[in-house]
Amino acid sequence: MRSIKRFRKILIANRGEIACRIIWTCKEMGIRTVAIHSEADRDALHVRFADEAICIGPAPSAQSYLNIPAVISAAEITNVDAIHPGYGFLAESAQFAEICEACNIKFIGPRPDVIRLMGDKVEARRAMKEAGLPILPGSPEPVRSEAEALAIAREVGYPIILKAAAGGGGRGMRIVRRPEELGPALQTASSEATAAFKNGDIYIERYIERPRHVEIQILADEHGNCVHLGERDCTVQRRHQKLIEEAPSPALTPELRERMGRAAVEACKRVGYSNAGTVEFLLDEDGSFYFMEMNTRIQVEHPVTEMVTLADIVRNQIRIAEGEELGFAQDDVIIVGHAIECRINAEDPLTFAPSPGLITACNLPGGPGVRVDTAIYPGYVVPPYYDSMIAKVIVHARTRELAIARMRRALEAMVVEGIKTTIPLHLRIMDDPRFRSGDFSTKFMEEFLAREQERLSAAH
Amino acid sequence: MRSIKRFRKILIANRGEIACRIIWTCKEMGIRTVAIHSEADRDALHVRFADEAICIGPAPSAQSYLNIPAVISAAEITNVDAIHPGYGFLAESAQFAEICEACNIKFIGPRPDVIRLMGDKVEARRAMKEAGLPILPGSPEPVRSEAEALAIAREVGYPIILKAAAGGGGRGMRIVRRPEELGPALQTASSEATAAFKNGDIYIERYIERPRHVEIQILADEHGNCVHLGERDCTVQRRHQKLIEEAPSPALTPELRERMGRAAVEACKRVGYSNAGTVEFLLDEDGSFYFMEMNTRIQVEHPVTEMVTLADIVRNQIRIAEGEELGFAQDDVIIVGHAIECRINAEDPLTFAPSPGLITACNLPGGPGVRVDTAIYPGYVVPPYYDSMIAKVIVHARTRELAIARMRRALEAMVVEGIKTTIPLHLRIMDDPRFRSGDFSTKFMEEFLAREQERLSAAH
Repeated sequence: MRSIKRFRKILIANRGEIACRIIWTCKEMGIRTVAIHSEADRDALHVRFADEAICIGPAPSAQSYLNIPAVISAAEITNVDAIHPGYGFLAESAQFAEICEACNIKFIGPRPDVIRLMGDKVEARRAMKEAGLPILPGSPEPVRSEAEALAIAREVGYPIILKAAAGGGGRGMRIVRRPEELGPALQTASSEATAAFKNGDIYIERYIERPRHVEIQILADEHGNCVHLGERDCTVQRRHQKLIEEAPSPALTPELRERMGRAAVEACKRVGYSNAGTVEFLLDEDGSFYFMEMNTRIQVEHPVTEMVTLADIVRNQIRIAEGEELGFAQDDVIIVGHAIECRINAEDPLTFAPSPGLITACNLPGGPGVRVDTAIYPGYVVPPYYDSMIAKVIVHARTRELAIARMRRALEAMVVEGIKTTIPLHLRIMDDPRFRSGDFSTKFMEEFLAREQERLSAAH
Repeated sequence: MRSIKRFRKILIANRGEIACRIIWTCKEMGIRTVAIHSEADRDALHVRFADEAICIGPAPSAQSYLNIPAVISAAEITNVDAIHPGYGFLAESAQFAEICEACNIKFIGPRPDVIRLMGDKVEARRAMKEAGLPILPGSPEPVRSEAEALAIAREVGYPIILKAAAGGGGRGMRIVRRPEELGPALQTASSEATAAFKNGDIYIERYIERPRHVEIQILADEHGNCVHLGERDCTVQRRHQKLIEEAPSPALTPELRERMGRAAVEACKRVGYSNAGTVEFLLDEDGSFYFMEMNTRIQVEHPVTEMVTLADIVRNQIRIAEGEELGFAQDDVIIVGHAIECRINAEDPLTFAPSPGLITACNLPGGPGVRVDTAIYPGYVVPPYYDSMIAKVIVHARTRELAIARMRRALEAMVVEGIKTTIPLHLRIMDDPRFRSGDFSTKFMEEFLAREQERLSAAH
């Protein structure tokens, strides 16, 4: 039996809203915090709220937030017990987790070998299939040639999708509907993958026409206990980037929820998963679900789960990393009401062009059932170097319909001046009959934007 | 069976955070809103967020928010279906409710006769005793002379408390521990009551040395259905003004909770109560509880109940006033976790002297489990004419201990510059071992402030 080692001080290897989010929970737990920041982030809120802050390099991420020696140095100088990686940056770097371990700093996440396994999408698929999860028909290994790809595609049946073995986030992905499209698609997907992940390996999967993206939130301790906190529906995506997430999914029956949850928990137990993680599934219209990938970190959309379960996922991550047992069982997890999250980006709501710059006025919504996770404030300058997400507005209400109404009024009350944001886009989505019906697929945004385009053209 | 009449438009006869709170729910329900405001409140947030706004008079409340003809004129000009009175001002004026009724405007609250009954504290006590609630031994009627008071006090037993029959909020109250103190105390209490309520009537009750203030939130429709949403503990008070409220009460067992709740519901049914209301009890250390008074309106502290039940009390008020049935039963009410509210006042945290003026900077806390109800914003000038409460910070977590930790970090992250606020006071209370133990009485603040005074003296 491992003993529990309480953390006195944690370094947060991240920036923006998630760094603040982690600091809030550390403060609640009485744990001191160290912020790291780039030269561009001197005035960032996470720097202001942490107990200590260290500048680790210039603005570009490669020279600061992704610079492992600089991050480790900061951790050693400040003598922290652990590092919380947040999401993005080094959160899914097995190498970083290993270096932390070698330096006797606890990495708040799963073991490096599990991160590495799940980071290789082909390996992860094979492991999760062995662990009992259904996977889409496709190539078990990266395809080695166009000829091999054609043979596999014939067996799987068109349409198929090409995916980067090392990838995620839509880069290196191509849908192929006819054999003659396969060769060129394979080439472009492979070069995109090489550019993005330094690995051009591509594998093939059956392509589902109208899937939903439904993911299961997992919590597993280092003693073999594992539970799920229900699902999140992340079907509203633009170019494979999630825009809106909700819990529970409007598409799941209690029976399907239990089956997906149990399957995810079993698979995580089999691969020796620990800490928080998310098992992402494609859900077909007939109720079949297929393992897509596992994210071995906290996710952007975790607050919807926190609202409907009253769990603090970051607190659980820290307690698990300290060696504690989960302390609750699957039956203790109760889902109450419905939560929705809108990701607010500093972007033009029509063209999606980034819109960094000075925030001249900023009023955040409050009142019943509204949570805002953000690092912006009046006078803050949104730097051009990082992800454009500047805030998450999350609402909680008894039903999905009430949650949509609540999100509407929260977004209407939210004031962010000086830069453009996607608030108006989210308001239009909240009014969209298709969104309100709950009956849509991952094609939703594409179709919604086409309808918007038509509406705008008609108005001219 | 009454038919349901949906409201298209509601006038909110209030200001500040509660006016905004009511507007939020109206927006969520698709109901248009009319704000009324004094000349001092032209730049107030409730004016900005309502669909229409009408100035109804000069700054002093008597000439604007309490001016019934002006309020009714505003309602008639804007052709509203209903008026929500909020709390304070006209919320418990039976006369105002009657005039609304006469003008064919629905008053969102109980019937005028019930408001009148509960407004007369002596009558309310008698009615609630008849309806089965335990009341403190005391005078059934206002005392008519010092001699009669002495006779009653002898029977009830010292210490006793003198209370204004028309009152509330501590005005006209006196504790009397010995017969020789009774005469002078009766005189000052009566003159205070006359000044405050134009009614000098005083009644006598047994005084409990270390009581808690525990109140039951009631929802009753106009068809005879009535449920409670559990209790709020409002034991932390200074000069009978509540400072901190929580739900559930740390002093209640499930069995006592059920007994108090059932007693309150039964009593409300017997007096024909409808809409939202609160039955206030004194809870003695031995678990005995005694009816104090009933508040026939929404209360400042309603958000703690909303957080632990996920009910929207304002929405329920509106639906009930429209003639709808409650739509849920007592068994549907489930309490999840623990919520705490701190009332942030524009006051010096040491002297409690009011501190109106310009808010130069204002950052409100967010993140998991934090709700802020407020009407302040950067650049807002807190006027000197009204109640000093400028914000309510409410937190929700799995346990009381976690909720206290969450409140601490929320208050630490809250920035209000330009004026003095009671944020530092609340931070000190959150750190106080007595508060943290949950074991305290309505004497808590008095004793806490004495300890603080000692600490400060020792530091000099």
